[in-house]
Amino acid sequence: MDNALNIKIKEIKEGSISISGSSGLKRNEMLVKIKNALIEKKEEIFLANQEDLTRAENNKLRTPLIKRLVFTEEKLSSVCEGIDKLVKLEDPVGKVLSRRLLDEKLLLEKVAFPIGVICMIFEARPDALVQISTLCLKSGNAILLKGGSDAISTNRTLVSIIKETLENSKIGSSWIQLLETHQDVEDILKMEKDIDLIIPRGSNKFVRYIMENTKIPVIGHSDGLCTIYVDHNADVNLANQICYDSKTNYPAACNSVETILVNQEVASSFLTTFAKNKDIIIYGDKKVQEIISCEEADEDSFDKEYLDKKVAIKIVKDIEEALKHIQKHSSHHTEAIITSDNKNKLRFAKEVDSADVFINCSTRFADGFRFGLGAEVGISTGKIHCRGPVGLEGLMTSKWLLQGCGQTVSSYSNGKKFIHEEMPTKGASYILKEN
Amino acid sequence: MDNALNIKIKEIKEGSISISGSSGLKRNEMLVKIKNALIEKKEEIFLANQEDLTRAENNKLRTPLIKRLVFTEEKLSSVCEGIDKLVKLEDPVGKVLSRRLLDEKLLLEKVAFPIGVICMIFEARPDALVQISTLCLKSGNAILLKGGSDAISTNRTLVSIIKETLENSKIGSSWIQLLETHQDVEDILKMEKDIDLIIPRGSNKFVRYIMENTKIPVIGHSDGLCTIYVDHNADVNLANQICYDSKTNYPAACNSVETILVNQEVASSFLTTFAKNKDIIIYGDKKVQEIISCEEADEDSFDKEYLDKKVAIKIVKDIEEALKHIQKHSSHHTEAIITSDNKNKLRFAKEVDSADVFINCSTRFADGFRFGLGAEVGISTGKIHCRGPVGLEGLMTSKWLLQGCGQTVSSYSNGKKFIHEEMPTKGASYILKEN
Repeated sequence: MDNALNIKIKEIKEGSISISGSSGLKRNEMLVKIKNALIEKKEEIFLANQEDLTRAENNKLRTPLIKRLVFTEEKLSSVCEGIDKLVKLEDPVGKVLSRRLLDEKLLLEKVAFPIGVICMIFEARPDALVQISTLCLKSGNAILLKGGSDAISTNRTLVSIIKETLENSKIGSSWIQLLETHQDVEDILKMEKDIDLIIPRGSNKFVRYIMENTKIPVIGHSDGLCTIYVDHNADVNLANQICYDSKTNYPAACNSVETILVNQEVASSFLTTFAKNKDIIIYGDKKVQEIISCEEADEDSFDKEYLDKKVAIKIVKDIEEALKHIQKHSSHHTEAIITSDNKNKLRFAKEVDSADVFINCSTRFADGFRFGLGAEVGISTGKIHCRGPVGLEGLMTSKWLLQGCGQTVSSYSNGKKFIHEEMPTKGASYILKEN
Repeated sequence: MDNALNIKIKEIKEGSISISGSSGLKRNEMLVKIKNALIEKKEEIFLANQEDLTRAENNKLRTPLIKRLVFTEEKLSSVCEGIDKLVKLEDPVGKVLSRRLLDEKLLLEKVAFPIGVICMIFEARPDALVQISTLCLKSGNAILLKGGSDAISTNRTLVSIIKETLENSKIGSSWIQLLETHQDVEDILKMEKDIDLIIPRGSNKFVRYIMENTKIPVIGHSDGLCTIYVDHNADVNLANQICYDSKTNYPAACNSVETILVNQEVASSFLTTFAKNKDIIIYGDKKVQEIISCEEADEDSFDKEYLDKKVAIKIVKDIEEALKHIQKHSSHHTEAIITSDNKNKLRFAKEVDSADVFINCSTRFADGFRFGLGAEVGISTGKIHCRGPVGLEGLMTSKWLLQGCGQTVSSYSNGKKFIHEEMPTKGASYILKEN
């Protein structure tokens, strides 16, 4: 393995201890310092970004990618706003998750702690680098960053500004490290003893590659094959509005709808209305084609993420058939039902095994900001640790703290009983209090 | 792959849907039915157990293994007691974890749901089979059981009694399946699309094998190299009591102490007292050997799980050296400090990266029953999902339920604001209510 990488890993493990043990006050103070440094040194950042942009233009990068790559005054003020919001959020470190008096003077607390060393792999978007680093600083985690290589100059400048700002502080600057090569990522995937969590972003194919090639836990989602089921008694106008929004509000998003299942009872009225949306290309099964004119759906149409203004539609007999279809084809991201039938609503909510299950609203609501999570770490389609849009709590683990005054277990073997008294979890840890 | 296994997997996936959608009332009712059936058919169970015991004796199984294998009237009444306790526990399914009004008539709830299909691999202990199955029934999870092959006759009988009891109920009996061969386990390890979680028990080597050979999430712990640090101002009698209990209360347990680090300031008084425990074999470093007569500790002594009345002792300069030692050698299970120094207590609690961090009490307290978790699923040394002793919540994931009345995201793009009003989480889900 690359020696430079080894040094970074050694440094970040030390950094992880110092940042995880730091106070929320100190971490907030550093967040404000970083914000000020970014503003103060913005010309330096813009200059580095210009280098990236020139290279990108020479390499004939596509316009949407250049749009993400550019770091403007506007993007700077948006990341600064993000930092302000983070500062205001409750400190996630040390939050008491449960508190129980096991016996007199034997207090148990389950307390939230940072996970440790997190590796985030993301697109060539310099603003994302700032968001990710500050999320980790807020939550006391050390962060290994690997941004898209098109943004390398801007990323280097941003990381060096953050590092300089914290260099002489108590927290230090070892907790943040920048990876630069694909080989670094390949090496990281094998370091399950050193890296606690990987959060990859990017194409479905890339995320799936990461998930399939590491033993390190991964938070993320590779697919977003979302379905809407329009139930037998659905309000057809409502269904049409929701389906239109779910498909067209941002077709390339993972939470846009890719399949619509329509109950046969409302199929005719729903389809004739929905087909008026001429900006959407419909792939319909045979029964759909009997009602409206559309493209022909084949075997694969219901397993495809179009990420475009295209949608596959199938007519189903009842909720039973809809649930079976979802069970077979869903990527467990977001599914919605449009219904006025309380029994079917309940059944759908209980039986659909997806991160987000929505009733009578757009699949596009599946998002940390809209959910009001304060900060979004990512969206997880896994069932373990966190699921759906993930806030800061996704970057936290816990420790069981038990404080006694000499208690032994053998005395309880001899008939002494535990009290096991549940206590309210409000307020800071009793065990971690300074005095 | 074995066709019989394929059929079981297909069945259990269907069973998983029916059990996860069932009501807590129904699941409790079934728990009571199972308890009654076990009592009613106890002679059948004892007879099957006799078969296992005869085979075990012929195979010259060691006495402690036979003790675990035997299923007596006493063990029956203990598992029945366990079922009674489970019935009394709050229903973990549908518990509201967070509740937020995103906007008028747009309610978000994060609700606990069963993880799905869980595979538990465990020792030849028939009582464990009942405990595990009933834990899964209580939490709405489907369970693939693989018990030690020495218990095969008893296990078959127990599973068939449970299956018969539920056969004609709404929940049905597909949610519980018994695996019988090692090849089944090998095949299961590759089924990451069908199995949501594996909980292995058994030898460290076996658990490590499972962890290293599957992409399915695993809850468990392979190692338990626990450490006690006796600080500079520790009460030496207290330290002696705690260390003795941590080593001798049950030396083969994962939470028994394997390494004691003693601050040089109290080394002499602690060691001379502790060495009086003639039932413990001490492996000491050079400095320890200058104070007491003991075995010589070598390089490996501090990386060894003795699981016996043996302990490695090292003298350290200060808490700094103790923390460094723990960081290098710990298995992140349970670490304890004996101290009267508040600053060191805090530092230890914050910087030690283990599931359980104890102050002035025995490492042997690290256990779901002693922690008062109601039911113990296992102990996890992972940081993701759950850590330390794990209760029923370890078998749960969550879904985000969002209920609206036709809301689209595009209307919020046009300036409409979210309310994001936090609401108390008390009581059952508003969205999942029956009427």
